[in-house]
Amino acid sequence: MDTNLELKALKELIKNHKAHALLLRSTDKYFNEYVPQDQSPRAYISRFNGSVGDALITPEHAYLFVDGRYELQAQAQAPDFNIHVCKNNISIENSWLNFLSENLKPGSTLLYDPSTIDMALEEKLQHLCEPLHIKLVPEAKNLIHTIFKAPPLSSTIPEIWQVGPEITGLSTAEKLEKVAQKIKSQNVDAFLAVKLDDIAWLLNCRGNAFPFQQTFPSLACITPEAIILGLPSSYKLPKDLGANIKVVQEYELIQSLSNYKLRTVGLDPTESSKEHEIALRAMGIEIKSMGNPLALLKAIKNDQELLHMRSAFKKADHVIHKTQNLIHASYEADQPLSETEIDDIIRREFTNSKACELSFRPICAGAKNGAIIHYGTPNSEQKVKAGSLFLLDTGAYYQGGYATDLTRTFLLGPKNTLSTPWQKEMFTLVLKASIKGMSARFRRGFLGLQLDALVREPLWRAGLDYAHGTGHGVGINVHEFPPRIAPTSLSEILEHQVFSIEPGLYFENVGGVRIENLVTVVADPKLPQFLRVLPLTFCPFDERLIDDTMLDNFERDFLNYFQEQWLSDAPMPQLPPLRDRKF
Amino acid sequence: MDTNLELKALKELIKNHKAHALLLRSTDKYFNEYVPQDQSPRAYISRFNGSVGDALITPEHAYLFVDGRYELQAQAQAPDFNIHVCKNNISIENSWLNFLSENLKPGSTLLYDPSTIDMALEEKLQHLCEPLHIKLVPEAKNLIHTIFKAPPLSSTIPEIWQVGPEITGLSTAEKLEKVAQKIKSQNVDAFLAVKLDDIAWLLNCRGNAFPFQQTFPSLACITPEAIILGLPSSYKLPKDLGANIKVVQEYELIQSLSNYKLRTVGLDPTESSKEHEIALRAMGIEIKSMGNPLALLKAIKNDQELLHMRSAFKKADHVIHKTQNLIHASYEADQPLSETEIDDIIRREFTNSKACELSFRPICAGAKNGAIIHYGTPNSEQKVKAGSLFLLDTGAYYQGGYATDLTRTFLLGPKNTLSTPWQKEMFTLVLKASIKGMSARFRRGFLGLQLDALVREPLWRAGLDYAHGTGHGVGINVHEFPPRIAPTSLSEILEHQVFSIEPGLYFENVGGVRIENLVTVVADPKLPQFLRVLPLTFCPFDERLIDDTMLDNFERDFLNYFQEQWLSDAPMPQLPPLRDRKF
Repeated sequence: MDTNLELKALKELIKNHKAHALLLRSTDKYFNEYVPQDQSPRAYISRFNGSVGDALITPEHAYLFVDGRYELQAQAQAPDFNIHVCKNNISIENSWLNFLSENLKPGSTLLYDPSTIDMALEEKLQHLCEPLHIKLVPEAKNLIHTIFKAPPLSSTIPEIWQVGPEITGLSTAEKLEKVAQKIKSQNVDAFLAVKLDDIAWLLNCRGNAFPFQQTFPSLACITPEAIILGLPSSYKLPKDLGANIKVVQEYELIQSLSNYKLRTVGLDPTESSKEHEIALRAMGIEIKSMGNPLALLKAIKNDQELLHMRSAFKKADHVIHKTQNLIHASYEADQPLSETEIDDIIRREFTNSKACELSFRPICAGAKNGAIIHYGTPNSEQKVKAGSLFLLDTGAYYQGGYATDLTRTFLLGPKNTLSTPWQKEMFTLVLKASIKGMSARFRRGFLGLQLDALVREPLWRAGLDYAHGTGHGVGINVHEFPPRIAPTSLSEILEHQVFSIEPGLYFENVGGVRIENLVTVVADPKLPQFLRVLPLTFCPFDERLIDDTMLDNFERDFLNYFQEQWLSDAPMPQLPPLRDRKF
Repeated sequence: MDTNLELKALKELIKNHKAHALLLRSTDKYFNEYVPQDQSPRAYISRFNGSVGDALITPEHAYLFVDGRYELQAQAQAPDFNIHVCKNNISIENSWLNFLSENLKPGSTLLYDPSTIDMALEEKLQHLCEPLHIKLVPEAKNLIHTIFKAPPLSSTIPEIWQVGPEITGLSTAEKLEKVAQKIKSQNVDAFLAVKLDDIAWLLNCRGNAFPFQQTFPSLACITPEAIILGLPSSYKLPKDLGANIKVVQEYELIQSLSNYKLRTVGLDPTESSKEHEIALRAMGIEIKSMGNPLALLKAIKNDQELLHMRSAFKKADHVIHKTQNLIHASYEADQPLSETEIDDIIRREFTNSKACELSFRPICAGAKNGAIIHYGTPNSEQKVKAGSLFLLDTGAYYQGGYATDLTRTFLLGPKNTLSTPWQKEMFTLVLKASIKGMSARFRRGFLGLQLDALVREPLWRAGLDYAHGTGHGVGINVHEFPPRIAPTSLSEILEHQVFSIEPGLYFENVGGVRIENLVTVVADPKLPQFLRVLPLTFCPFDERLIDDTMLDNFERDFLNYFQEQWLSDAPMPQLPPLRDRKF
């Protein structure tokens, strides 16, 4: 009953190659989170189109490793694969590493593609395979190419445009100066920047090459004096970026470094591919592992960025609020909608609000589909019944090129539709968790896993939890790390980072609730030893889903504040009220 | 105005020795937390008698490094020393390391005692001093000896006695088997156990050598088959411990290892002194750094241990409750008490309850002295006024040899004494934080710094915090690590660990509140993916200090539960109520 012919062909090729397994990762060579569907051999061969999930294919079997949010989707889309769901905080990578160590026999050969594996992970793989006498062969690309050739990258005319200083706050020259300091302090001659949002941030440019992103294909070698930028031949940089930038062909970038007499180049082993390392070493350049010097500079937003991001978030708040109103009006008129119709409305409303692009594929999940954490396949056949919960998780880019991201769960149906006690309880629990995050005050030095615990606590108290992180940084990409607010995240939460707080509850075949807001962090105005969370999104909650008897006065105060900020015209919101000590 | 003649003499000796500084640590060679006053050169020379604090002495100056809890006490007791208070989670050790690097000139000589510095810290010191061209000379002991000679260890007859299997749950042979597995898995021939409570745990023995401890001076080399135990000549082991134990003179232990053909011995570099390392190497034995294989075995209490500890905690609960009643009766009769008189009552009541020994020097702090976190010098001159807060932090050992530890803060005065609004608010805030900890449910894998954040959150919300950890393990010693519940603690919280939850608030020259309870952790009976905190102490709170309007229903439920458990005769308490989901 093998209906997947491409998979069958790949299995055949692995067998003919006398190999025993092939690692097929979801990433592309840019480690883009949103690899275009048509560019992804993993999506093509597995039929699973979720954003994250790695496959292992042997001559006999196929395995797909996904996390909790994709469990149901993977099962539905990839019936020819054994689905491994990573639970208990085990990463997808560790999951297939464990699987390999338990299932590959000594003497086996494993094929992999060094352009889709970072140095740190490749080292881990080597460490695992060596004592087990498993041979690692970097030739997977050729086999995959026999079956799958990606079409040209973008159907639109490739474009790169500049974002003005009123938004970015800092010029490229100013940013380069900060990066240069960090490069010098590491005693390297240059740093190889591979993350597309890092390069977009440094150059104050955006592009339209990839779906759901505003970045452009590139690779950059940053020295303290210059940026040597590799671009594909079809791309041109805007003029006058006000810094010393040398543009070369992307595929020639590493070779071109011979002109710069670089002895040592820093690479972040958790971000740079093994392929880059191999290419640099082949040039006789010494590699030094170091932390990405751009990461924290990019994560900490300056005042202009914050103001701009807030204005973009506000537009998105109104789009989502209006979409809800349109949906409610339709049900009021006794015209139920399908998920696809709601998907159409939100896309149209984003376009009407002058968004340039969505920041990810909208999640439009009615009733039981709300349990699929990253539901990506809206149903056009069925109308979602009045009285159902609807989970809408969407975001967009406006002129300025920072992503928005917001989730609201609301009740479908005319105004007087009553929520069930279960709906109300689940929603209110998630709301309480959200408020914990959005109103938090904590000591400087607080870590992601500590804020994560504060947010989950009201759910744990009820014996509930969610199988995903609590929050992620937001910037040029909708998922930007650091910070990461998750059970194992040791990343420190710093002033002016922007991130999501998105607790949820999911019940398979029943439904789901998620509430996602974006926030930043500021110094407590009265108590400088403390930091405070400052909410940046205020799209109203569906009051029919709030059980007031489950709230305490502090939470009621917060909801009043939230409504006030929604109605406020101020460019930046105020801090939520805290019931400070009386005496 | 140098009134401290011993300090003056030591400065002179350092100068004559052509050295530039001498490190004088608070630990003894056993790294005992409670070094007997009369055994501590640091206490003798500085006059500061707090349990933790290291000194640096130069020919001209003297510096004392303490943490927040000892700030005021150090200032009062050691006027000839510059007091450095370690704040912002910087340890005492890092504090003097920083000080050294900033103040010692290249070419300087620093004297230290290798028996009072662990290998890891010594390595850190070496790493710091080498590039700065500071010479490290391990001869501090001789200089100190010129000024200070410790009297014989104990005034009582040295004794070691056995604790029965109905308390320990496991025989020494069974424990050795578990330790042996861990030793073998590290590919070493033996482990050198240096912590006295580890040795007491393994041998199921207790002793009376040290104040506030039930351990005995010893050093043990554990092989998978035998325990080679070094004891001072005046000590004898009880017979028939049911395992292969070879007793030698403590000072000869390392030399005696030549009889055992040990090639490699494991040491925990964070616990073993540099002196042990030097001695082992001198014997031609290879050293392997490893984690202490006894630590986690000892931290996770078995059912018998838990039952016994609970029974000891219950006795202490009643002692402290009765002490409060006696104090109240005295104020009722218009006879105010001094701190010393209250100290006398608590000591007498512990003796009446058949306690063998206190587990630490009681903290009897009235009114503003409550702000001194580990107040150790009760005032006999002044009666504490009615209407004052009193902070009583005490513990003891009963037959069985596990420590108890409890803190109550209560109002002094006749029954009808009214608390001030400030007292009530501070107490209720600390109570709310305590309840957070004592009622917590969390995912397996939860870390100390996450529970720490949950407990502090109600205080942070009010803009308040405390400058000490939230909790410490409790066992044979009153402070046992792991677990550690503190802002930087990555130690995982595991089933059947026993630890304290002790939030507090301190206001210099005004007063302090601390509430300390002991708890354990059990699997959630209904939801095995969760762990739950199970309180083990139930000494009632002073109701005059509770502001009911600040509590939510959950907290009220908890206080009712707490009172029920206080009145219950069950050998083990029940779990606190959680308002589980309704639907």
